[in-house]
Amino acid sequence: MDRRTFLSGITVMTAGAATACSQESGRTGSAPAAPAINRRQTRRLRMVTTWPTGFPGLGTAAERIAQFVTKMSGGALEVKVYGAGEIVGAFEVFDAVSNGVADMYHAAEYYWQGRSPAFNFFCAVPLGMTAHEIISWVEYGGGQELWENLSGQFGLIAFQAGNTGHQMGGWFKREINTLQDFRGLRMRIPGLGGAVLRELGGAAVALSGGEIYPSLQSGAIDATEWVGPWNDLAFGFYREAPYYYGPGFHEPGSALALGLNREVWDSLPVDQQTIIRTACRAANNQSLAEFTYNNGLALHTLITDHGVQLREFSPDIWCEIGRISETVVADTATADPISRAVFDSYRQTRRLGRDWANVSEAPYYRNRELVLGR
Amino acid sequence: MDRRTFLSGITVMTAGAATACSQESGRTGSAPAAPAINRRQTRRLRMVTTWPTGFPGLGTAAERIAQFVTKMSGGALEVKVYGAGEIVGAFEVFDAVSNGVADMYHAAEYYWQGRSPAFNFFCAVPLGMTAHEIISWVEYGGGQELWENLSGQFGLIAFQAGNTGHQMGGWFKREINTLQDFRGLRMRIPGLGGAVLRELGGAAVALSGGEIYPSLQSGAIDATEWVGPWNDLAFGFYREAPYYYGPGFHEPGSALALGLNREVWDSLPVDQQTIIRTACRAANNQSLAEFTYNNGLALHTLITDHGVQLREFSPDIWCEIGRISETVVADTATADPISRAVFDSYRQTRRLGRDWANVSEAPYYRNRELVLGR
Repeated sequence: MDRRTFLSGITVMTAGAATACSQESGRTGSAPAAPAINRRQTRRLRMVTTWPTGFPGLGTAAERIAQFVTKMSGGALEVKVYGAGEIVGAFEVFDAVSNGVADMYHAAEYYWQGRSPAFNFFCAVPLGMTAHEIISWVEYGGGQELWENLSGQFGLIAFQAGNTGHQMGGWFKREINTLQDFRGLRMRIPGLGGAVLRELGGAAVALSGGEIYPSLQSGAIDATEWVGPWNDLAFGFYREAPYYYGPGFHEPGSALALGLNREVWDSLPVDQQTIIRTACRAANNQSLAEFTYNNGLALHTLITDHGVQLREFSPDIWCEIGRISETVVADTATADPISRAVFDSYRQTRRLGRDWANVSEAPYYRNRELVLGR
Repeated sequence: MDRRTFLSGITVMTAGAATACSQESGRTGSAPAAPAINRRQTRRLRMVTTWPTGFPGLGTAAERIAQFVTKMSGGALEVKVYGAGEIVGAFEVFDAVSNGVADMYHAAEYYWQGRSPAFNFFCAVPLGMTAHEIISWVEYGGGQELWENLSGQFGLIAFQAGNTGHQMGGWFKREINTLQDFRGLRMRIPGLGGAVLRELGGAAVALSGGEIYPSLQSGAIDATEWVGPWNDLAFGFYREAPYYYGPGFHEPGSALALGLNREVWDSLPVDQQTIIRTACRAANNQSLAEFTYNNGLALHTLITDHGVQLREFSPDIWCEIGRISETVVADTATADPISRAVFDSYRQTRRLGRDWANVSEAPYYRNRELVLGR
């Protein structure tokens, strides 16, 4: 998926936008006193996001939350969404909300891994949990409490607020048949997935979303990952890199997040807090459903209309990628005590999730195909 | 899962309860006029359910929705939950809400298959969609519109409001190694799953939840299915039937539903409608997360503390079960035009979901285990 590099084109816009922001911050930066529960004036909240306005699946998830909140509160809370670069740049949203320049952000938590590697676990890590597994960890496995400890260090509180479901392995100009084929491979793949590629002898390249297609075309890169069929189809990568590898190893169910300024959150009456949390939980449901449905449709289009060749990494490749992934993730988690605690908790729930998947969905998918064929 | 028979013990309570109900119905049966959006008096809504009060995962899902709605509306909507038998019997909730005796029900839609077989598709059918697949169908694949057509015939409107995730194949006293082992097998398995067992030469037995354990103990039945590890552990089936088969073929992701009296729904202002729908969507998220986490925990207890033997039906058995399932489901769908339309739409989205699962979660689960072992 997209990280810092995806939005580098957009962050160029931030110098000017930041000026606009500091001009405006006096107006909205300090939260008004919490209205008493029965004395409802309209309270305006500003949501900044790491997504371009209207970006399918991601920008739309942010807008859906804003609509849910505004509608459910009968307009008492009015949430306005600002795309990346409109008030602050994509990767300035964390600081903007932490400092009270904006009230909340919608983003993917692994963008903040520079603050603490623990943030990776609240979005996605290589060989990690699937969508409903990570949701189960945060909601029932102690993840939310750990997350509040982590975000609390920055004056924030964050909730799961969308999930992309499984992401693909990427688009390749040539087939990947052996581990040797990764040597020297120039691939656009960010973050911890990129760290794994480097261990395999490849070159992980940093490119913003808009730069990927021309780079494939010019031969500057040999491969790229992005999200999944729905988002990938729109970019037309299939024209330059016909081999589409699935599944990805690096983002098996990426959670999106709504982060709020902690003082703003604390100032809200309990009904409005419940409205925001429930909107986030509903956004999880909608988002995963929307990606699931649209990925199925887009995959059909890619294969039927565009002759895309689906491929899967061989068992040998998976074993090596998996071994490296485990090391990369474990290393990251040794950075600080909270990362250690988050890592331990995450691993414990992944263990439970694996045991359950091994007797439920995993063999069900296999047996359903045994009956219905491909 | 539980159907008519599971609650037959509870429906015994209904004769008396129905009297209480008709005494009360004058008070709450006719919905009060919709309050104007700015004139908020507390409006009390009664939710009747097919679950015993507090029943883990099912009764608790109903109560969670009530809490979300009451809290988010700041008490303007006050939803009170009544367990099976408290106002009306478990299987009278559909008529009670249709007739305005209660305002809404929480249930599993396949209980109403006697009205139209189309209702099965809004809960679970053999060899059907997994949890996130069925959510994607209802939310984005046209399922909700078809459901509203169907429920509209009964003066109702219904929404997805919880999901159990994958359900297990059941508990067996003896191993099932060949198709012959189903001949004469007396198994507690309801509905369409039971119809499949009958085709295999077994005897599908109807038993309420509380009757299952004694029937296993006395030898009256040889096997039973229920839900999954979390709910099954509580009943202690492992003591009488040590072979636990997974995954089940008959309920791969059962949706729960909130059905509302259509006039009550139409009388609600848009913010309160949004509160109810969003609470249902959030309940989907919570419910699937809760089942996922607790099934993992309970599976561990079953294996480690109680020595339960996990088993999987052989490929031969799956092929035959699958073939029969497809016929049973297709036959059911020929009952009326709406069933046909629902069947066609469901199948189309199942096809998309299978294609997507085949390049994402299905091979991911397989490859994750290849790396991490069992």
